[in-house]
Amino acid sequence: MLKVKNETYKKLLKINEQLAHYESILSLLYWDDRVCMNPKAAEYRGKQIAIITEYIHKVRTSKKYGQLVNSLNLDDYKKYSIEWVNVKWWKFEYERNSKIPPKLISKLSSLIPTSLQAWEKAKKEKKFKILLPYLKKIVSINKEMIEKWGYDEEPYEALVKGYEIDITPKEIEKIFSPLKENLIKIIQKYKGKEVPKIEIDKIKFDTQKLEQFCKFLIKKISNLEIRLDPTSHPFATTISPFDIRITTRYNSIESAIFGTLHELGHGLYDYYLPSSKYFGQPVSNSISLSIHESQSRFFENIIGRSRNFWEFFYRELTKHIEDFKNIKIDDFIKHINKIDLKPIRTEADETTYNLHIILRFNIERKIFNENIRLEELPELWNETFKEYFGYYPENDSIGVLQDIHWAESLFGYFPTYTLGNLISAQIYNTMKNKVNFDEIKQGNFENIIKFLKENIYDYGKTYTTKELIKLITNEPINPQHFINYIESKLKEVYN
Amino acid sequence: MLKVKNETYKKLLKINEQLAHYESILSLLYWDDRVCMNPKAAEYRGKQIAIITEYIHKVRTSKKYGQLVNSLNLDDYKKYSIEWVNVKWWKFEYERNSKIPPKLISKLSSLIPTSLQAWEKAKKEKKFKILLPYLKKIVSINKEMIEKWGYDEEPYEALVKGYEIDITPKEIEKIFSPLKENLIKIIQKYKGKEVPKIEIDKIKFDTQKLEQFCKFLIKKISNLEIRLDPTSHPFATTISPFDIRITTRYNSIESAIFGTLHELGHGLYDYYLPSSKYFGQPVSNSISLSIHESQSRFFENIIGRSRNFWEFFYRELTKHIEDFKNIKIDDFIKHINKIDLKPIRTEADETTYNLHIILRFNIERKIFNENIRLEELPELWNETFKEYFGYYPENDSIGVLQDIHWAESLFGYFPTYTLGNLISAQIYNTMKNKVNFDEIKQGNFENIIKFLKENIYDYGKTYTTKELIKLITNEPINPQHFINYIESKLKEVYN
Repeated sequence: MLKVKNETYKKLLKINEQLAHYESILSLLYWDDRVCMNPKAAEYRGKQIAIITEYIHKVRTSKKYGQLVNSLNLDDYKKYSIEWVNVKWWKFEYERNSKIPPKLISKLSSLIPTSLQAWEKAKKEKKFKILLPYLKKIVSINKEMIEKWGYDEEPYEALVKGYEIDITPKEIEKIFSPLKENLIKIIQKYKGKEVPKIEIDKIKFDTQKLEQFCKFLIKKISNLEIRLDPTSHPFATTISPFDIRITTRYNSIESAIFGTLHELGHGLYDYYLPSSKYFGQPVSNSISLSIHESQSRFFENIIGRSRNFWEFFYRELTKHIEDFKNIKIDDFIKHINKIDLKPIRTEADETTYNLHIILRFNIERKIFNENIRLEELPELWNETFKEYFGYYPENDSIGVLQDIHWAESLFGYFPTYTLGNLISAQIYNTMKNKVNFDEIKQGNFENIIKFLKENIYDYGKTYTTKELIKLITNEPINPQHFINYIESKLKEVYN
Repeated sequence: MLKVKNETYKKLLKINEQLAHYESILSLLYWDDRVCMNPKAAEYRGKQIAIITEYIHKVRTSKKYGQLVNSLNLDDYKKYSIEWVNVKWWKFEYERNSKIPPKLISKLSSLIPTSLQAWEKAKKEKKFKILLPYLKKIVSINKEMIEKWGYDEEPYEALVKGYEIDITPKEIEKIFSPLKENLIKIIQKYKGKEVPKIEIDKIKFDTQKLEQFCKFLIKKISNLEIRLDPTSHPFATTISPFDIRITTRYNSIESAIFGTLHELGHGLYDYYLPSSKYFGQPVSNSISLSIHESQSRFFENIIGRSRNFWEFFYRELTKHIEDFKNIKIDDFIKHINKIDLKPIRTEADETTYNLHIILRFNIERKIFNENIRLEELPELWNETFKEYFGYYPENDSIGVLQDIHWAESLFGYFPTYTLGNLISAQIYNTMKNKVNFDEIKQGNFENIIKFLKENIYDYGKTYTTKELIKLITNEPINPQHFINYIESKLKEVYN
């Protein structure tokens, strides 16, 4: 019997290794689309992507695959062993996928391209009602899927589970509520206070030199060969093991630099995952979106906006962009850490960013748990925004229409951004006692990356988000660490 | 019956359209490998390429595919109609592929990577005997394949047929023989004559500026968005219709510029082929390697080394590389057209290039028709080289080992290079009466490209090489046009 199980396990390994090559191809098709491809070829690229996607989906939802997966018993494996992790995730993914009828999936996938077009138009024309009919369809399909998947406490839970296997909306609420209260208090506290004004947007820069500086950051921090290309929306991707690529945009100095650091955080995690050792196996993957985001935010914010960091890199920055010679490093650091209260999430400062997320989390929950009418979304958005930020967004384009996620059917995704922020601060709090962050002043990131490798990257998908945080920090996810971190930073910024 | 045939034809269209998407993916995997990929990921890329290649091969050699192809009758279609061309090529390819047992193919494919490694080592260490055992195996497999394919006049014919469907080695000999005699005479004639010396290799250049100039060339000539990337070996590729990409290298000014022009010639042909209109159909492809090469050589040499061309572009060149201000345009044009007698084909001047090819053609013919011992290849090479060029190559690394082709099992490929050169001169001879080449002086390439579009590109694979040349120039392939062209040019160069 054990031998048969072993054969089945090996078959699944082989199928998934093969599929992982297809997934590599898919990553390349997407990367190339966004980085290199002549847009005139979009129609052909769409078909190439569809062919590969459909093949992967076909194999993973096939009867044969299901039989193999179902014939394995998770209890036969030692908890947290490689095999246990693989079997656990094969089962989770297969169950989740197989509960949704193929027709519903293809209904959704064929809806998304037109929905995205509608979203772009709606955003451009500041008219929510252009998106509304598509959003209604997408939400309705998601509700159907929720019923197929099932849930324990509330419908929205089934969506969150797609991104965080063991964190429920109730748990998120317990984390987000005190965070929200504290953030609103912090905003009140610093209201009207100013930092020395530096007009960073008026600084002239040579894009090539800014790019060189960003590449210098990557090389100096990681000591790895990681491609950096320009795109309109920054992202990180893994084509195959050792082939990690990130992008940033050069529309402003800040977005280029912090975009690079953010994606580098994602890239480092991907690079050091055991994806070569366990190629194609679930255990070689990242834990979750929130752990992934904790890594990007760690390098973007905790490292990248710290005094230590700029004590090393500011001189290099002035070499690439001369005008920084006229700006005091102190003023620059204050500038990149100040509270801004901007209406757009992707432009938000580190403090208010989480309020943007909490707002979305609360609205998503209302959509799926309370079945609110989608016509009311703009009003709900604006009122909640006013409550958190103290003012109404000027229009829906920089309000309810600002993000692509809902038009793309990404519900339950947003909370992982703030979970990532909180986790990064919580891990940082533990790291501080074990790693000397002053080493950054000498441009030395070795011990920081070593800690992350040994405590996060190396494990791959062995633990869940909650388990890993407990292991590293010896307590559950606790927003207080972020609050402490941001308060102590703001105290310095507004001193 | 006709209806059944029509259904079969449609099925083949559909299968081949699907396969063309896989071929697009394959092109991207190769392009990315050479242009973007981190070399550490080579093993994974190899597997991705193998998966897609094997899939395409499996479908195209499947019983089902063979039955479909065999059930169509070429005589049922009007000659030169789209359908006729497609059926003709489906049949040709299937017959050629299906004659070779899969085992022989996999024997050859698994041999090539090690053979290439041996070639690199042999070339580096200047030791032919390192390559010899691999070459023996490859030649022996090729001989086996020749027997499977069959031939009319001589064994080598079966190999040439893989690249030129209706040109036999006998016909090539008739073209190459007078060419060889004339070229040797020309070399004798100009022996010892000098052009004004310009030390172009000592000119300092900024790679980025040289790249900008090359991109300017592409844009100005083609008025298309064609990517240009740096690689160690320049190439042109089509990912999908409208997505044409070329590369060049910046190791020297000349190789960057003429590499760009050469690949642009390939790229223009690919861009204007009816590949979007007849996607995945044989008729949408290029005719042959020699026609493809005629296009690259046309832009590299006939256009790119002409006085008209530099009268427009020289000023722009001096803008990007200042030192050219100290070089007279006359001297530059003489320099890029002079006879050099270099031992390496890829560095050869326009006149002697063809002697390099004729040498290879004659040796390949001896290998397969006369079964010469491969141990004798270096001596045979050196003696023939001495006969043509008047001196012995210093060592095998710049002699018999210089090209990758044989180690890669590319036999019968070389003659297409010179056929391409001859064809470009022959077409040019006809074009001169219909297109005003003086327009190039104003940077206007519109009518030149229009002629090529209407007379070559638009037809796709409708005609064979021989048929097309007859159609355009009203005579068979005739080397005299190249001889006239090069003699009249050299007269100016050495005036």
